[in-house]
Amino acid sequence: MQKGSGSQGMSRRNLLAMIGMTAGSAAMYQAMTSLGFAAESGYTGPIKLDGDAKGASVLVLGAGLAGMTAALELRKAGYKVQILEFNQRPGGRNWSLRGGDTFTELGGATQKCEFDSGMYINPGPWRIPYHHHALLDYCRRLGVQLEPFQQLNHNAFLHSAKAFGGKPQRIKDIKTDFTGGVSELLAKVTQQGKLEDVVSKEDQEILLQALKSWGALDKDYNYKAGHLTSEYRGYTQDPGGGLTARPTDSEPIKFTEVLNSRLWRSLANFSLYEFQTTMFQPVGGMDMIGKAFARELGDIIRYNAKVKAIQQDEKGVTVTYEDTTKPGTTLQATGDWCVCTIPLTILSQIELNVGAAMQAAIGAVPYASSVKVGLQFKRRFWEEDERIYGGISYTDLPISQISYPSTGYNQGGKGVLLGAYTWNGPNSYELTAMDPAERVRQAVEFGAQIHPQYRQEFETGISVAWHRVPFTLGCAGDWTEEARKDHYDNLCQIDGRIVLAGEHASYIPAWMEGAILSSLDAISRLHKRVLAS
Amino acid sequence: MQKGSGSQGMSRRNLLAMIGMTAGSAAMYQAMTSLGFAAESGYTGPIKLDGDAKGASVLVLGAGLAGMTAALELRKAGYKVQILEFNQRPGGRNWSLRGGDTFTELGGATQKCEFDSGMYINPGPWRIPYHHHALLDYCRRLGVQLEPFQQLNHNAFLHSAKAFGGKPQRIKDIKTDFTGGVSELLAKVTQQGKLEDVVSKEDQEILLQALKSWGALDKDYNYKAGHLTSEYRGYTQDPGGGLTARPTDSEPIKFTEVLNSRLWRSLANFSLYEFQTTMFQPVGGMDMIGKAFARELGDIIRYNAKVKAIQQDEKGVTVTYEDTTKPGTTLQATGDWCVCTIPLTILSQIELNVGAAMQAAIGAVPYASSVKVGLQFKRRFWEEDERIYGGISYTDLPISQISYPSTGYNQGGKGVLLGAYTWNGPNSYELTAMDPAERVRQAVEFGAQIHPQYRQEFETGISVAWHRVPFTLGCAGDWTEEARKDHYDNLCQIDGRIVLAGEHASYIPAWMEGAILSSLDAISRLHKRVLAS
Repeated sequence: MQKGSGSQGMSRRNLLAMIGMTAGSAAMYQAMTSLGFAAESGYTGPIKLDGDAKGASVLVLGAGLAGMTAALELRKAGYKVQILEFNQRPGGRNWSLRGGDTFTELGGATQKCEFDSGMYINPGPWRIPYHHHALLDYCRRLGVQLEPFQQLNHNAFLHSAKAFGGKPQRIKDIKTDFTGGVSELLAKVTQQGKLEDVVSKEDQEILLQALKSWGALDKDYNYKAGHLTSEYRGYTQDPGGGLTARPTDSEPIKFTEVLNSRLWRSLANFSLYEFQTTMFQPVGGMDMIGKAFARELGDIIRYNAKVKAIQQDEKGVTVTYEDTTKPGTTLQATGDWCVCTIPLTILSQIELNVGAAMQAAIGAVPYASSVKVGLQFKRRFWEEDERIYGGISYTDLPISQISYPSTGYNQGGKGVLLGAYTWNGPNSYELTAMDPAERVRQAVEFGAQIHPQYRQEFETGISVAWHRVPFTLGCAGDWTEEARKDHYDNLCQIDGRIVLAGEHASYIPAWMEGAILSSLDAISRLHKRVLAS
Repeated sequence: MQKGSGSQGMSRRNLLAMIGMTAGSAAMYQAMTSLGFAAESGYTGPIKLDGDAKGASVLVLGAGLAGMTAALELRKAGYKVQILEFNQRPGGRNWSLRGGDTFTELGGATQKCEFDSGMYINPGPWRIPYHHHALLDYCRRLGVQLEPFQQLNHNAFLHSAKAFGGKPQRIKDIKTDFTGGVSELLAKVTQQGKLEDVVSKEDQEILLQALKSWGALDKDYNYKAGHLTSEYRGYTQDPGGGLTARPTDSEPIKFTEVLNSRLWRSLANFSLYEFQTTMFQPVGGMDMIGKAFARELGDIIRYNAKVKAIQQDEKGVTVTYEDTTKPGTTLQATGDWCVCTIPLTILSQIELNVGAAMQAAIGAVPYASSVKVGLQFKRRFWEEDERIYGGISYTDLPISQISYPSTGYNQGGKGVLLGAYTWNGPNSYELTAMDPAERVRQAVEFGAQIHPQYRQEFETGISVAWHRVPFTLGCAGDWTEEARKDHYDNLCQIDGRIVLAGEHASYIPAWMEGAILSSLDAISRLHKRVLAS
């Protein structure tokens, strides 16, 4: 990672403050924009591929978001474009499973999704950060309607089998009591003069005020049961109306219990940049994005095309593939150039004549292991019984988390939970090794420790273990810092007439934004190469 | 406020933990439920008014949420019900202003709302906490569709004219840097052994781990520029794809600057119980709730009825009112009983024969002053330029806050901001004293200090100063602790054949939930009285 620009001479921030003090705020905004301070994304709007492509053709491999982005923009720039796609649908990992869908994983097990109409699960990407500007721009241009995805729900649970006798705790309680405990300790040492040598007297006074407001401390800087803390963490009995109205204060959890529970470990899930509000999901399922791209692209996507070999020479690229609806067929497609978005797990098994550096890079990237389980229940008990509307409960059980639907709130009826979502680690491997029905059974069994209603209300489930997904054999590129240093640039460089793209060729692996930005960067360079050739 | 139950003998929490350790989690859930631990609301489901009302009639004054709740439930219980309502619409403060609406305030100034179709502002309530169970239950029963209201948007602004040269700061930066600064200080004193006498050695170790994860501290417990802090606060240049992908770390704001900016004061707006996620708003405007109630009630609401006098005797209640469409008319309505939800500001000016205690209570409650300004802009620049999707920016300017629409995200087109929302204090009084157009002008002028685009993009605005709203003369009951002690019970007691209800007769003033819970409590007692009489 590069060092922040602030360390080089006068920081941008200081420069801006100076400008702000001498000129008005309009001048400030101009300055912000021209210095790029307000535009932290590399994406600054629709790509412009100027210049005459002279009818050159590009063969795009893969109709995931990277491939479809490349196809859309290259066609617009005047190229003849064709896409070959392994699946019989667009989107790749941009995928939703609905009632009636079937899915066959590596090993041959086929699941039929039995969800009711309108219910779905997103086995792949499922949330969009507000700062994924390229993806948001495509959603806007392609008419994909978005709704908020709830990452933090204060009333969802943090759970550890080893803490509080296995009783799930409300996020608001752990969050508030942790903040209160930290604030009380720091306020006390401040009062005792123990910060004298590091914080100025004036700042100590402000710090005390700040800790009071932030940590819900009383006038003596104590964090303890009372009206004040209840205003932050909620009441045992909420305030009401008329003559039955008086609230009952809640009792904070002792700080030592909060610490020893280790439940604070999950709090970063609500403060990391990637998970900050406002996050989004497409209305109706994540695959609305892939479908919107495909609708725009029309019939240039050839589905059911399993790539067997990619050969380039000085004149062009020839791809040999099988039509999977007619096993044993051998077909060929050609292009002057090729944008290949096939996941590296698959690409490394395909005959491909690129240089040694790119070959080495293709083999250097392990893929993350991830398992998701979708569970349909007879009723939305998490809303009705527990007042959890969207958001995620985190647990140290093998299911790792339970995510509640960020849509259809408060309307009753059935609902589909994300009943497990693991990312690497032994749990992912163990769940992957099970047959699909057993994964579902385990998700129900473990989930019932958090929501006992599971046993009564469960109807049907489906599971996707990404290492067994035929079209990716893994969830996403999982670069180590070392592999990145040695191989990343080699992976991204154009090799002859072939350039790779996809989330694996980005610094935002596993995110759709990475796939799109990687694609835009690749085709920009490819276009320059074409114009120069 | 009552003391928490935890201080009385064995706490409920400990009892639960014991149960949890000896029995399974299903037993735990049973115990939680039967002890009421999971049911913190006084509202436990639709009210049941059993017993024969014998055709008794109830006159309800006011078709706000309190009045309509009373009417709905009393009619269901067998009462003959009529509602008199001052306005020509239902809802009271549950109100949305749309293009074509007009509004005349006290003093005679009339505004016509010029918003485009589909745009609206909620002058009164505008967000629903997830724990307002009664309101949510009515929304469900009445088919009111909800969508999330964004209270916290990490990318919205905190602004002070006196800090950072007036340059607005992203909430995420202040939040992260404040947390980082606090964590670093506490980690350092922990390492220096300054917590020895208050925190056990074991807990100190856990505390250090927790501060690292929570505060984004490096291995030496420093909070400073680097990849780690950027993962929390964001980057100067976000990670991207292909060969233009490497991110640039951002530079944290110095802790002393964060403290002295006082911007931390606004952080409680994202942690207080009332503002915790997930919050809601009705799709299409807050008045969808009032309209749904009114649709259900049908023609039992008489609009344009200005109550002049409320007289009770041993036989019943007679209300004298004017039909405001025919000024000077004097009409009468009668009922065996009366549920009066007229705001106390108005009620105190109406002839009413209740006892001295209730009379004193009616006069004892000041009403909060509040001003809201809605501003329509040619484009949603806050999304397009600044990537702010919903949420609220807080400022120490007289406008106090700017709230971005929690709907229609990322679709472009026009948008309406809440351009000012004040609550008591000099700003409220000053804005109230201005004429409506001047309030709008001021909101634009001040807002432009945060969003310079205001000047270019502003189209039209409308303002509501609640002390000038003829049907309430104030925003909401603003009880002091003392007034509550002396008068609250007297306000809520049934006086002869009259009972009062509304947010002012609750411990949740200014919230719709308070109005509904107050009403349910009042009619429960009234119904008992009727059955006994």
